[in-house]
Amino acid sequence: MAIPTKQQAAVKHESEPRCEVTAIDVPPLEPGHILCRINYSGVCGTDKTFIYDQWKPMGITMKETTKGIAGHEGAGTVVAVAEDVKDLWKEGDRVGIKWVTSICRKCEFCTNGLDEVCCPHRKLSGTSEPGTFQEYCLTDARYATRLPEGVTDEEAGPIMCGGVTSYVACKRSRVRPGQWIVIPGAGGGLGHLAIQYAKAMGMRVIAIDGGEEKRKLCLDLGAEHFIDYTKSTDIPAEVMKMTIYGAHGVIVTAATREGYATAPRLLRPRGTLVAVGIPTDPTIVAGASPILLSMKALNVVGTVTGTLKEVDEALDFTARGLVHPVLTHGTLHDLNDILAKMAAGKLAGRAVLKIVP
Amino acid sequence: MAIPTKQQAAVKHESEPRCEVTAIDVPPLEPGHILCRINYSGVCGTDKTFIYDQWKPMGITMKETTKGIAGHEGAGTVVAVAEDVKDLWKEGDRVGIKWVTSICRKCEFCTNGLDEVCCPHRKLSGTSEPGTFQEYCLTDARYATRLPEGVTDEEAGPIMCGGVTSYVACKRSRVRPGQWIVIPGAGGGLGHLAIQYAKAMGMRVIAIDGGEEKRKLCLDLGAEHFIDYTKSTDIPAEVMKMTIYGAHGVIVTAATREGYATAPRLLRPRGTLVAVGIPTDPTIVAGASPILLSMKALNVVGTVTGTLKEVDEALDFTARGLVHPVLTHGTLHDLNDILAKMAAGKLAGRAVLKIVP
Amino acid sequence: MAIPTKQQAAVKHESEPRCEVTAIDVPPLEPGHILCRINYSGVCGTDKTFIYDQWKPMGITMKETTKGIAGHEGAGTVVAVAEDVKDLWKEGDRVGIKWVTSICRKCEFCTNGLDEVCCPHRKLSGTSEPGTFQEYCLTDARYATRLPEGVTDEEAGPIMCGGVTSYVACKRSRVRPGQWIVIPGAGGGLGHLAIQYAKAMGMRVIAIDGGEEKRKLCLDLGAEHFIDYTKSTDIPAEVMKMTIYGAHGVIVTAATREGYATAPRLLRPRGTLVAVGIPTDPTIVAGASPILLSMKALNVVGTVTGTLKEVDEALDFTARGLVHPVLTHGTLHDLNDILAKMAAGKLAGRAVLKIVP
Amino acid sequence: MAIPTKQQAAVKHESEPRCEVTAIDVPPLEPGHILCRINYSGVCGTDKTFIYDQWKPMGITMKETTKGIAGHEGAGTVVAVAEDVKDLWKEGDRVGIKWVTSICRKCEFCTNGLDEVCCPHRKLSGTSEPGTFQEYCLTDARYATRLPEGVTDEEAGPIMCGGVTSYVACKRSRVRPGQWIVIPGAGGGLGHLAIQYAKAMGMRVIAIDGGEEKRKLCLDLGAEHFIDYTKSTDIPAEVMKMTIYGAHGVIVTAATREGYATAPRLLRPRGTLVAVGIPTDPTIVAGASPILLSMKALNVVGTVTGTLKEVDEALDFTARGLVHPVLTHGTLHDLNDILAKMAAGKLAGRAVLKIVP
Repeated sequence: MAIPTKQQAAVKHESEPRCEVTAIDVPPLEPGHILCRINYSGVCGTDKTFIYDQWKPMGITMKETTKGIAGHEGAGTVVAVAEDVKDLWKEGDRVGIKWVTSICRKCEFCTNGLDEVCCPHRKLSGTSEPGTFQEYCLTDARYATRLPEGVTDEEAGPIMCGGVTSYVACKRSRVRPGQWIVIPGAGGGLGHLAIQYAKAMGMRVIAIDGGEEKRKLCLDLGAEHFIDYTKSTDIPAEVMKMTIYGAHGVIVTAATREGYATAPRLLRPRGTLVAVGIPTDPTIVAGASPILLSMKALNVVGTVTGTLKEVDEALDFTARGLVHPVLTHGTLHDLNDILAKMAAGKLAGRAVLKIVP
Repeated sequence: MAIPTKQQAAVKHESEPRCEVTAIDVPPLEPGHILCRINYSGVCGTDKTFIYDQWKPMGITMKETTKGIAGHEGAGTVVAVAEDVKDLWKEGDRVGIKWVTSICRKCEFCTNGLDEVCCPHRKLSGTSEPGTFQEYCLTDARYATRLPEGVTDEEAGPIMCGGVTSYVACKRSRVRPGQWIVIPGAGGGLGHLAIQYAKAMGMRVIAIDGGEEKRKLCLDLGAEHFIDYTKSTDIPAEVMKMTIYGAHGVIVTAATREGYATAPRLLRPRGTLVAVGIPTDPTIVAGASPILLSMKALNVVGTVTGTLKEVDEALDFTARGLVHPVLTHGTLHDLNDILAKMAAGKLAGRAVLKIVP
Repeated sequence: MAIPTKQQAAVKHESEPRCEVTAIDVPPLEPGHILCRINYSGVCGTDKTFIYDQWKPMGITMKETTKGIAGHEGAGTVVAVAEDVKDLWKEGDRVGIKWVTSICRKCEFCTNGLDEVCCPHRKLSGTSEPGTFQEYCLTDARYATRLPEGVTDEEAGPIMCGGVTSYVACKRSRVRPGQWIVIPGAGGGLGHLAIQYAKAMGMRVIAIDGGEEKRKLCLDLGAEHFIDYTKSTDIPAEVMKMTIYGAHGVIVTAATREGYATAPRLLRPRGTLVAVGIPTDPTIVAGASPILLSMKALNVVGTVTGTLKEVDEALDFTARGLVHPVLTHGTLHDLNDILAKMAAGKLAGRAVLKIVP
Repeated sequence: MAIPTKQQAAVKHESEPRCEVTAIDVPPLEPGHILCRINYSGVCGTDKTFIYDQWKPMGITMKETTKGIAGHEGAGTVVAVAEDVKDLWKEGDRVGIKWVTSICRKCEFCTNGLDEVCCPHRKLSGTSEPGTFQEYCLTDARYATRLPEGVTDEEAGPIMCGGVTSYVACKRSRVRPGQWIVIPGAGGGLGHLAIQYAKAMGMRVIAIDGGEEKRKLCLDLGAEHFIDYTKSTDIPAEVMKMTIYGAHGVIVTAATREGYATAPRLLRPRGTLVAVGIPTDPTIVAGASPILLSMKALNVVGTVTGTLKEVDEALDFTARGLVHPVLTHGTLHDLNDILAKMAAGKLAGRAVLKIVP
């Protein structure tokens, strides 16, 4: 298939909170890289945060090297392969692009096998590199993900970040089969995936979110209980009633001050709070007073995306039919509307864009 | 040896921040219990906090059932044994009294073998039961600690809480031999013990505290580096220089806002902050912003005292000559002075009281 | 309800491999104990081994103190409570009796919270104490199991040993959700429970056993694949084909030389072999040549029953409807027939006896 | 420095158990590779096994692709760097060559960060590739080890395999600071390093070996006890006396039937046997009867070399002055004598060859 010289991309506006779909050059192939035609790209909360410049006060913005192209949940097909990596990929291979697109393979984080995503020399799709909101994306061949049979492109996209983040959050919770996990924000992009991973891992899920639609979604996806925060007057008391001593884990996917403040109070001794949702307000803290933390010997852990291996694991749950993103569809032209819905907290599940028409 | 009917005890004043040494009744023996003559008792920061009513705004005070007697680092001798526990103890046995003095043995925290100290039915020396600032202390025979050969009473006392807390903090840090641990407050009651346990566990220690006396103490006890917070203008930068990517663990024994705010910034990715020091200001939080916590995949863990088994382990390090509390000596009559020094941050190491003259 | 003075019990014949149902005294209540009317008792492979004296060459036999009464999977009702444990039990409470019936609570294995079943002072139902093949069984009140709602006595019995052993074997395998576990002997008493626990813990199960009945049973219980050892010419090759590099774990419930010899060859690097089935031939070894063990960095682990806490966990899976023993019913009078079937490898699932008529 | 076209190498004789020092071509540089001048190479037991063809009955021999050149503990200097890896290495860099010299970086063992050395596509120095018993060795630039300051070449060599294997064996034992580890074969090449790593990790060491020289060596290196197997009549009884319940771990560095048969009997419940020594007799098994393994809930684990990261960790202990190989020196011309001494069990510590004169 011929590779065009021009392509469509959604480019961040310099000062306004929106993207513009414009024609740009298709990037030329480079050593060590593959060129990928993006079939679908998921839309992550971080995309919204970057395009809306919401972390600017914290000094975090998309780098100029991204050329204004966000997106890091890409799924598509390899259309060109650099000479030196032809042993790794061939044209037509199905490929996934993650948030971390390249690592140094030399530092201790790359070599200890757990923390490559913390590599100080990492490259990031849509943060330091042009992302997946474009038709043709160039990416490091040695760190791209091979998509397995049984996972469609439109489902694979959202697994690349939302899926693996939810999956790794479940792992980091150390909650064992038969134990309780609470998921504030359970009806959202990360939360609705976390319910499914937690259930597939044998955990018992208590979902927290607002409204009847979210209640139905969460219970359908496998939550055992639903707490409607718009109605509950005492969430900790409800959780205690369901779990006797409190839950074994809480995965905070709701990026709110209230969510982080309440979470430690939902836990039993030795319980673990997993911080996933990243608020735009830098004064919000994930943690607890030392006296609470000590007396209950609590754990608070952060997690962000997952390793190459963990992405494979996350995809495998979908290939086996256990985890499916709930999708709202669109194209590059719908991106601004979708971002607005996300900002308003009105998007259930995950949005995915059909990139190449 | 005859047991008197009256004894001396340091009793908390109702409204003022001090104790009064007065004569009270020796408690009568009860089923399941042993009566212990307290030879030495360590003085913990918590004793000061309780006697000074500093947690009162948080709703935490010594219970009336303590009769105003604090203290939970007791070491002495068994002088009477209830009939039903004569298979466990005999008169003359050496015994240690911990903060947790009794557990229910039925709840999941008692039976899971890790968390008995979180038992909801636990009893606490100096918090819910009369403590070790008295000559004769009655305690649950099934949960008292047998003191090993090679540990004197005056050293055993401070191990009962300060020692085991420091030891368990080192364990909870998950720092492995050859890795870096930072100890803010390293010259204090907990910190100076944490240096020694960390070193005996093969860790590399960076001590943080203020002043030349503390510097000398910390380096003598085995710290590889010392950072003087009264002189340093950028503690995180100094730690980064020593450790390249940051430390693998931080044990916050300094109960200050500054200590908790700085700690996450001393860590490398996947590093662990152990919260030990408990501030009297309830607005201080151990934790970090979700973005820092996530991006560096940090862990924040609380810890308080240790299990019966862990106290034995902590004592064994002293029996093997690897950990020695640095002691300031006194008697019950010196308690008020010692508390005042602790409140002023002027007590190096740990204070221990000779209880029975 | 009146407690009789005489009761029926199945008593091991002195020299022949069988039991005789005879009338014996109901044991008198003792301090710290409860008297339990046994409603149902499961029949474990170990009962057969003891009654058939098959470990005699290894020097292991039922102790005289058992009075020849085997059985350690009891479920029934408390009918009398010693004075000093009336805070723990009351008449009418539902109770389960395990293989380990009493522990010292003082040794390091009792206090480290993981290994109480290895307590050197433990007492064992049907091994050192009269077991559950009698109508009224006296047991240590502090270590008996409280049966939860949602689990009938006839299901609870087999969980007391077969269930918890299978559950703990799954835990000890360290196989994570989505990974492969192979269960040789999957259609047997332990194996058919291990399938269910493994599945409930998110593992993918490959069952190995012989014959169409076993195939159907294993697949119905949730195994993803079945290998018929009576037909397969190369079990390791079949497992490799299903799993690419080999399974992550193998739980050997088949107590055969062949089972143990093949197991290491079914594993991928870092895989874990869990030894559960105990052969009567003392020359059979669970392990591998050091070169295989080293080159693949394999793990071989033993496991036996579970802690008080783990029995509660195992029961909870049944209460939640996820694990059900497949039962063959009988009474004390059917015990000899059942033992003979077990010896012939003809018993599918687990046998359970109705003890009190 | 000029690179010659010819070099000296010790080449395995086709049929006899010895090497011949002969002149061969210096290998030409290839993409992705560096050429290293070998200053020192340690001599591993595996070199002896290969050169003596002792695993031939098990079907394991040096591959023809090695050109008969064994050796996998190399330390030296980079003398040429392929164009595509000039970002990684420059001439003059100090470099270490390990047993595993190259990995695929794609398989699950390469990507899970724990098991890269189990990569099915790995290359092995002296097993599948020409080893370090030659003056100039070509090796994969992306997997070679950077030698740190503070470690000389002659010490670095033996760390490349013997050191890291001993270190990882200590890690795999899961023995914690203050617990007991027994090392049969403690005076040998692996054992004398294991003593030092174990001690630096806070473990208490019981060394087993034969003779006064070995006793002195082991005690000097930090063992707390020494058992002379040539004199002891009951090693398990001696270990029990020292440890009450048995040791927490045993690292079997002695590749003997007796060593493996005794090891499980030295362990306390939950103890771990680490299999390191690889016997030439394929009927020797590391493991135990299922009844012993189960009743004591033992672990048996294999381990072989370590990851790139773990080699760095192992070197760091030497850089910090905590672990030093005890060395017998020689040159390529002494290799046959050294192998003979090793075969006779007469070599204390480790042999190291000065390769480039």
